Amino acid sequence: MAKVGIVMGSDSDMPVMAKAADILEELGIEYEMKIISAHREPDVFFEYARTAEERGFKVIIAGAGMAAHLPGMCAAIFPMPVIGIPMHTTSLGGRDSLYSIVQMPSGIPVATVAINGGANAGLLAAKILATSDEALLGRLKDYSRTLKEQVEAKDAHLQEVGYQNY
Amino acid sequence: MAKVGIVMGSDSDMPVMAKAADILEELGIEYEMKIISAHREPDVFFEYARTAEERGFKVIIAGAGMAAHLPGMCAAIFPMPVIGIPMHTTSLGGRDSLYSIVQMPSGIPVATVAINGGANAGLLAAKILATSDEALLGRLKDYSRTLKEQVEAKDAHLQEVGYQNY
Amino acid sequence: MAKVGIVMGSDSDMPVMAKAADILEELGIEYEMKIISAHREPDVFFEYARTAEERGFKVIIAGAGMAAHLPGMCAAIFPMPVIGIPMHTTSLGGRDSLYSIVQMPSGIPVATVAINGGANAGLLAAKILATSDEALLGRLKDYSRTLKEQVEAKDAHLQEVGYQNY
Amino acid sequence: MAKVGIVMGSDSDMPVMAKAADILEELGIEYEMKIISAHREPDVFFEYARTAEERGFKVIIAGAGMAAHLPGMCAAIFPMPVIGIPMHTTSLGGRDSLYSIVQMPSGIPVATVAINGGANAGLLAAKILATSDEALLGRLKDYSRTLKEQVEAKDAHLQEVGYQNY
Amino acid sequence: MAKVGIVMGSDSDMPVMAKAADILEELGIEYEMKIISAHREPDVFFEYARTAEERGFKVIIAGAGMAAHLPGMCAAIFPMPVIGIPMHTTSLGGRDSLYSIVQMPSGIPVATVAINGGANAGLLAAKILATSDEALLGRLKDYSRTLKEQVEAKDAHLQEVGYQNY
Amino acid sequence: MAKVGIVMGSDSDMPVMAKAADILEELGIEYEMKIISAHREPDVFFEYARTAEERGFKVIIAGAGMAAHLPGMCAAIFPMPVIGIPMHTTSLGGRDSLYSIVQMPSGIPVATVAINGGANAGLLAAKILATSDEALLGRLKDYSRTLKEQVEAKDAHLQEVGYQNY
Amino acid sequence: MAKVGIVMGSDSDMPVMAKAADILEELGIEYEMKIISAHREPDVFFEYARTAEERGFKVIIAGAGMAAHLPGMCAAIFPMPVIGIPMHTTSLGGRDSLYSIVQMPSGIPVATVAINGGANAGLLAAKILATSDEALLGRLKDYSRTLKEQVEAKDAHLQEVGYQNY
Amino acid sequence: MAKVGIVMGSDSDMPVMAKAADILEELGIEYEMKIISAHREPDVFFEYARTAEERGFKVIIAGAGMAAHLPGMCAAIFPMPVIGIPMHTTSLGGRDSLYSIVQMPSGIPVATVAINGGANAGLLAAKILATSDEALLGRLKDYSRTLKEQVEAKDAHLQEVGYQNY
Repeated sequence: MAKVGIVMGSDSDMPVMAKAADILEELGIEYEMKIISAHREPDVFFEYARTAEERGFKVIIAGAGMAAHLPGMCAAIFPMPVIGIPMHTTSLGGRDSLYSIVQMPSGIPVATVAINGGANAGLLAAKILATSDEALLGRLKDYSRTLKEQVEAKDAHLQEVGYQNY
Repeated sequence: MAKVGIVMGSDSDMPVMAKAADILEELGIEYEMKIISAHREPDVFFEYARTAEERGFKVIIAGAGMAAHLPGMCAAIFPMPVIGIPMHTTSLGGRDSLYSIVQMPSGIPVATVAINGGANAGLLAAKILATSDEALLGRLKDYSRTLKEQVEAKDAHLQEVGYQNY
Repeated sequence: MAKVGIVMGSDSDMPVMAKAADILEELGIEYEMKIISAHREPDVFFEYARTAEERGFKVIIAGAGMAAHLPGMCAAIFPMPVIGIPMHTTSLGGRDSLYSIVQMPSGIPVATVAINGGANAGLLAAKILATSDEALLGRLKDYSRTLKEQVEAKDAHLQEVGYQNY
Repeated sequence: MAKVGIVMGSDSDMPVMAKAADILEELGIEYEMKIISAHREPDVFFEYARTAEERGFKVIIAGAGMAAHLPGMCAAIFPMPVIGIPMHTTSLGGRDSLYSIVQMPSGIPVATVAINGGANAGLLAAKILATSDEALLGRLKDYSRTLKEQVEAKDAHLQEVGYQNY
Repeated sequence: MAKVGIVMGSDSDMPVMAKAADILEELGIEYEMKIISAHREPDVFFEYARTAEERGFKVIIAGAGMAAHLPGMCAAIFPMPVIGIPMHTTSLGGRDSLYSIVQMPSGIPVATVAINGGANAGLLAAKILATSDEALLGRLKDYSRTLKEQVEAKDAHLQEVGYQNY
Repeated sequence: MAKVGIVMGSDSDMPVMAKAADILEELGIEYEMKIISAHREPDVFFEYARTAEERGFKVIIAGAGMAAHLPGMCAAIFPMPVIGIPMHTTSLGGRDSLYSIVQMPSGIPVATVAINGGANAGLLAAKILATSDEALLGRLKDYSRTLKEQVEAKDAHLQEVGYQNY
Repeated sequence: MAKVGIVMGSDSDMPVMAKAADILEELGIEYEMKIISAHREPDVFFEYARTAEERGFKVIIAGAGMAAHLPGMCAAIFPMPVIGIPMHTTSLGGRDSLYSIVQMPSGIPVATVAINGGANAGLLAAKILATSDEALLGRLKDYSRTLKEQVEAKDAHLQEVGYQNY
Repeated sequence: MAKVGIVMGSDSDMPVMAKAADILEELGIEYEMKIISAHREPDVFFEYARTAEERGFKVIIAGAGMAAHLPGMCAAIFPMPVIGIPMHTTSLGGRDSLYSIVQMPSGIPVATVAINGGANAGLLAAKILATSDEALLGRLKDYSRTLKEQVEAKDAHLQEVGYQNY
């Protein structure tokens, strides 16, 4: 049974949301991905959020852009953590999405990550699940080790070839 | 039967929303005012928006602050015009409210007025109803004439006393 | 007789304004489109706004960019609703247009839609007319149903092919 | 005959506009001050701007706040320089006023000064008139000398008492 | 053993951080609160973050203002979720704190809540723990019900006394 | 003898400054264009500003980008009007240039035009000179008439071909 | 002979600049404080900057607000480090000052500190001098130790009394 | 022994950081360049900052983007000057990086240069070292002279060919 729901309001958000799914795949976490618009099909959305707990979700990752209401409306209904990904936008660079997601009123938090931060949303979902899953916590530590080794490899390459040839 | 629904997410928005009601009172338009939170009672909100048409509403005026989802979610469900009032906020001056309301995705417009623009929301609702109500249109023209006379009176006072004594 | 006036200050705004006209065409609403600059031909503009009511307009859709005065000046003269479309701008992303349109002083509302929100301006005009036109209201509900079906079709495609092949 | 027209849309702008008048008084320049709203009395405004040249104005100083259209609309009609003063605003700090005034499209310049820059608007008007008035240019140079002496006096005081006692 | 660490860089953040602690108290969650500055005592901070897991923490709530590095540096070291609270700031309204916390690079997420969002940080921590604690989840649902009832009570009061007497 | 000095800090500003010169050429106004950096050659700059009056300048047009000090430093030395053109910048869109030019302290005004507003700077210089030059004022009125005719021609074309074929 | 010049354009900047002087006093560094306006007395300013090296300055700390040109113009003339302090401003919160100081073009760096960051400017000057002064470096390390102890004392107090009584 | 440490969190910052190194090469200053991530390898970073003084560094130049913590965390540990370079970012144009670097709390200054200001960071490091190195100060003056000559050559070219052919 999927533990993480990934939901986006429009398929134009797919490239960012896919990065969240990639992380969950890599860490062996079951998820379910849906395109559901809180604005264009509010009844479908409402049903989705209302039944998310009984379908087994522990976390929902919701991405949206502009006047981004999907994450906050999920958080109004689903009782466990909702992670919001603000999408980059042409005119306002994603400030509209960011403010619409992070500035939630008291009582209804959304765990907000960076603009277009798909991978970090996936990681944050994993960290949440890892609070009660030692094996997953171990895989997360391995993942961090890999990040560190990538930086070390880049620095080693720089020391070898110098910055002019990097 | 009320033609205009006025709805706010929190009673802290009352001073601004009251200005909208004042205008409707002054122009003789029936309205109904409610405090309903899309975030804290989503089921109550959905029912409100779903039944707004059958209760006779032609326009909804919705005010909200911060990650302001109430106007946009009304517009997702109610098929006639929704007017959004972005509330001033301490940290971002109301930019968060403004972006959350005005930057609606294609298909779901919200008629947005200025930050804290309660009176203008009331006037816009009246102008919408006046598209099919000649008598109301007449009252709106009278209202505009009053605004003009107020400015003329101020200028007359200035010409009389000079700016140092104004 | 046209019920909606569409007016823009420059033909560089045409791609956005055309989306408003497309919606009105699709919903069977008569309109008249003009290029009129409040800055470059103030007398032509003034005459346009002053005679808009007698030409039968119930709504004006005005688009403008940068220091965007056209929508607000229309609203100062025309007694029924004016919808403002802020144009995207290279340097400020459309914040200049947005603030010049939405931040109208008390007494003169402009119903503002998103930056470059041409389609939403057309829809909002239709919703305003639908407050007194049952048939149009029906066509608007059909339009919303179509939007919903498009999202459902996209989600069905996602469930079929998976996100990696979407 | 007044050479400078000072015009504001609302008497709430008076404290800032008064600083412009103070400078003109100090430099012995005739002016005429009016409260005229481009939004609330567009016909009065149009008449004012259209007749400004025949009344002898060489420069207009126009102040306005929020969606500030007065300076730009003056510049659309009056053929000589228009100086715009953006008013400070509670929610957006005057950015709305500034963008509405400075971001004029090609063909219609407004000489914009700082937010709430009343004194600088008066000085700029004087500098414009001084391009053809040697005596006024002399008085402007005296004014600059006074500014310099004020700074020198402050520094002398600092050197005397030290910063702890300043 | 405390499950949540609450840490702030300066005691000026206390009024906001106290709201997080209040929520944890109310929901019966053990926590430990510390004042630790990543900038003024980096060695103390590193030791704190490095030993947080072995002290039993499942979540860290970190608040900071201006160039706010505390939450991100916690997230660089502690393997489970870090919740960041951006503090309001006088000059930039908290945008500096917000950007410094939410815009984390890929690999190191911080679950960011609203500017000054102390209560929401506490609730988010509770929601994270509730993914593996049915009793706590029940208490969170009770909490949501209380929020709903508060809004209903306010609306009932409005219906009784009317907006002029509210 | 040149009446207008055009000065820019870097030849990367040339495309924008050229539009100012084009307008002056078209209106038959003598000017002198220079590349002078207040930052890279402060002594050359100081000499330029100090001798501008004796070389016959009545107006200086100064363009600069980023931390744009050239217009303000000209205004600190030259006693007649200085027009500032804020250059568009990659990172901040020209807000840095705009604020550095328009937000001058009391006593030292810079007549600021739009970001990249080269043509408007040229027109503003012409309008300033036209306060004492009837013939130039006539040419400026002709110029405005041309702008009006261009808009009328575009509208006529629109009415002929329709928006789909525009 | 003073090693650090502290200069401000207006005595309204004194409360912030005094914090820089306080730090230099505390660390035993000689300095000279002046009020000099680059805008109101450009010749005095040029002389100041031109002779700063021969008067023994190794660092200049310059504070300014709004269109803040003083730090950048110092850096254009003085060959050693210039530290810029952007002043908080009412309308733009100090963004205008910050952008005018930090966004210097290539070739003329200004070492910029936080808005109103007087104490940090003093510390940065000390750190610069400490690159060639072992004794001063020692005093700076003592200063850092004091900062650390202050945080430790606050945390000890918190542990003792609890957050409700803090 | 290298006097300047250049450090970046990601090799995507290399094009900007390389400009700092180019300046140091040109001015004959020894430096060491490293890729070290405060977020992905906090222990490596901590060791780097802690040993920087004993490796002979007098200045560290640190570049970072988004929630940019590297410069501030260096400044928390290294006792001599840290120069911060905010990287341009796609969504927020580098405002996130700028605020995360420049808005350091009292006690921990970072000498911040312009967004993407690699060359200026190199120059500022040289100016800092030049406070105790007369020969380097001479080379810096030569460098400034070259900048001046480049501007003079451009102006000479303009005077020769005219702006239309520039």
